[in-house]
Amino acid sequence: MTVERWGVHELTLTGPADGNPFADVEFRVAYRYRNRVLTVDGFYDGDGVYRARFSPDREGEWSYLTSSSAPELDGHRGTLLCIPPGPGNHGPVGVRGAHHFAYADGSRYDCIGTTCYHWTYQSKDLQELTLASLRSAPFDKVRMCLLPTDGMRPERTPFAGSTPGSVDVSRFDPSFFREFEARVADLLALGIQADLILFHPYDRGVWGFDRMTAAEDAAYLRYVVARLAAYRNVWWSLSNEYDFNREKTIADWDRLLQLVQRYDPYQRLRSIHNGTKMYEVFTPYDFGKPCITHQSVQHWDGAEVAAWRACLKPVVIDEIGYEGNAGRRWGNLTADEMVHRFWQGMSLGGYVGHGESFVDRETRAWISVGGRLYGESPARIAFLRSVFAELPRLGDGEVDASRCVLQYLGDRQPSAVELDLPPGDPFRFDLIDTRALTITPVAGSYSGSCRIPLPTHPYLVLRGTR
Amino acid sequence: MTVERWGVHELTLTGPADGNPFADVEFRVAYRYRNRVLTVDGFYDGDGVYRARFSPDREGEWSYLTSSSAPELDGHRGTLLCIPPGPGNHGPVGVRGAHHFAYADGSRYDCIGTTCYHWTYQSKDLQELTLASLRSAPFDKVRMCLLPTDGMRPERTPFAGSTPGSVDVSRFDPSFFREFEARVADLLALGIQADLILFHPYDRGVWGFDRMTAAEDAAYLRYVVARLAAYRNVWWSLSNEYDFNREKTIADWDRLLQLVQRYDPYQRLRSIHNGTKMYEVFTPYDFGKPCITHQSVQHWDGAEVAAWRACLKPVVIDEIGYEGNAGRRWGNLTADEMVHRFWQGMSLGGYVGHGESFVDRETRAWISVGGRLYGESPARIAFLRSVFAELPRLGDGEVDASRCVLQYLGDRQPSAVELDLPPGDPFRFDLIDTRALTITPVAGSYSGSCRIPLPTHPYLVLRGTR
Repeated sequence: MTVERWGVHELTLTGPADGNPFADVEFRVAYRYRNRVLTVDGFYDGDGVYRARFSPDREGEWSYLTSSSAPELDGHRGTLLCIPPGPGNHGPVGVRGAHHFAYADGSRYDCIGTTCYHWTYQSKDLQELTLASLRSAPFDKVRMCLLPTDGMRPERTPFAGSTPGSVDVSRFDPSFFREFEARVADLLALGIQADLILFHPYDRGVWGFDRMTAAEDAAYLRYVVARLAAYRNVWWSLSNEYDFNREKTIADWDRLLQLVQRYDPYQRLRSIHNGTKMYEVFTPYDFGKPCITHQSVQHWDGAEVAAWRACLKPVVIDEIGYEGNAGRRWGNLTADEMVHRFWQGMSLGGYVGHGESFVDRETRAWISVGGRLYGESPARIAFLRSVFAELPRLGDGEVDASRCVLQYLGDRQPSAVELDLPPGDPFRFDLIDTRALTITPVAGSYSGSCRIPLPTHPYLVLRGTR
Repeated sequence: MTVERWGVHELTLTGPADGNPFADVEFRVAYRYRNRVLTVDGFYDGDGVYRARFSPDREGEWSYLTSSSAPELDGHRGTLLCIPPGPGNHGPVGVRGAHHFAYADGSRYDCIGTTCYHWTYQSKDLQELTLASLRSAPFDKVRMCLLPTDGMRPERTPFAGSTPGSVDVSRFDPSFFREFEARVADLLALGIQADLILFHPYDRGVWGFDRMTAAEDAAYLRYVVARLAAYRNVWWSLSNEYDFNREKTIADWDRLLQLVQRYDPYQRLRSIHNGTKMYEVFTPYDFGKPCITHQSVQHWDGAEVAAWRACLKPVVIDEIGYEGNAGRRWGNLTADEMVHRFWQGMSLGGYVGHGESFVDRETRAWISVGGRLYGESPARIAFLRSVFAELPRLGDGEVDASRCVLQYLGDRQPSAVELDLPPGDPFRFDLIDTRALTITPVAGSYSGSCRIPLPTHPYLVLRGTR
């Protein structure tokens, strides 16, 4: 049996189907490579079938040994051969330096995401359309929810039973997860990270998923991690807009984040996303806590990245406002404004996420259901991505300031910009028009304290290279 | 001798030319209409000539009687006949209700101003060009300084002597004032208010005009008021960016404002303009003080008008940022952003001032020297002016909300807006595109709680009328 490095190996066994196997049966598998051991939780997949998923991070022979409270599942042994990763498999994304990301094989990861909260809850046709849209979009991460909102009436949820009031949160719905996992795998095939939102406040007690007991929360997280952690494109977003959930405290979120940290043998990226109203004071979760790997921020102002970098973890503004025509302020930005915020946040060394909320188009709001992209910002974000991809970087992922200067001029139109260039050889500059999507060389070369003329036009970037 | 109501009557006498007539000679004239007496300060105009200027506010026969410390100027009597105002003479502008303005004859005054700080200090040709630009521009007020900045080396200043270090602040330069007054009269002929800035902090001790003694300040203000108060288009702006002058305290500004209040028999509009950096907390002069007639604000955010209206005086954002391409943030707004701020502030019941700062054009920055207007905002502000001019208003100048709804949608692009219309007959709506300068009727009529669809486009206004 072979598996790619960072691929998924699945072990299938049969065991007890009576009682509540989700709650009653303990089932774990210890994988060993030389003296390295990773222990994963298995999970009950219905109909007496138990599975364990494992993603090896070393090439060579791994052995495994199962342990279980059920004798049928206990004491199984075997080996698997981990072979080199196939084309396009760069491993999981991790943190690089203080403020950046990279794939496990060292290749660049740009972290330019988008949001489609409930795209996996839509019709099969719409899900395929979303995937087709993502295929030609510039996004490498999708934020998506496991749990439905109060107003949704889906065929399936993660839990057994599909009507509010008759859901049994002590049992899971394996069919829901099989479909969900298939979508995570579809994203993986597209090279897209699945930023999985485990809780959200939009339940308001209707399903009750926002106010389960501590034990129910823990069982849910353990089951989700057991099923999904092996997919190398999975990130954990403990909650969306956690501060809008009045049923849970910061101590609860701490505990739940620590549970995910404990359950997940791969230590996939973990964060939690604030919902404090964008025009009020921003009081985020303390991203300095060890259970957090990166700052998943909601804020409208990309210029704040400079301040948030004081916390030495990557800054990802997952919600900075959405292009569209929704009634609410978060969802009716022009493309100009949306892309302006991207350039602002990213030129300061942060990452910014896209969203789109055209409420009157055929497939409705992208952020909710996926479907088609109607806005003008994706093309401009693709251009931004290509500019950032070419910047010379240091080992920690920071732009190499000795070789490259990137100055975003914003929504203003100064006739010149004054720069203090680092000593050494002169720089040559390009003028990047983030709206016209053009890159034009600036005449001459510059060094030291210099003044570079600009056309009177907003949304420009000066890029200097040696 | 006849003079129009609100026109200027000038009395000329000869008197002592020796010593320092500016300081040594007291000369006042009491004008009487029935039992109404207005006493004005005369002023020394050089070469033994003394003048007094008077602007009658009642039609009919006025008598006058001079009094002076110099016998030649004392005890002169005479009469003048005040006749009805000529065409275009609506009298001075005053406050209407709590938050608005009107001319003395009751006609509408829109208060859409601009700034040309030192246009009267430029060459005659450039001054003529400024007047020509103003003739076709939509502005009804100009902010302008009496005193030069540290870097200027004009032929004349208000004081005797034209080189820093050799100026005698106990004597004035009548030639300077004659030229300046001619420009105030030129503005009057164009129907434009002259918002005269009496002090500013851009001297930095070079001329010393920012750090004169209390007696010197008082003599300066008295002379300026004696010469200029009779022009009905004069407003007093005690200082520009007063808080940037470290040589004076709030108590000093209080005293100087009170002096102007005492010297000026007509009680022309009086305010003082803050300079607190636009992106810091805004801590204005207490505009509630009785020496203040209106709030002359510097702030970048028109949305703040709603808060400032808590002080029951008109809100005039004289500096909200300038269209242009200056290096500093205050001077490189796009036309879109400039006009956006106008609509924001004015639709909340405030007034907003224009400025332009293109630093690389033939006549340089309009805000400093006047000259030509290069921006796109004046045409859009003319359109805005025409929209506001048509709004039905109540006696206190407020838009009549029972007959008219004006909803500015800002730089966002919602697909619909929800309104709660006042009870009664339905409203019909027009969609105003503040950038395309079009007004398009919206189909249907609306009443009560309603939802009006909008095109996905920023910078729109909905205007509803019955």
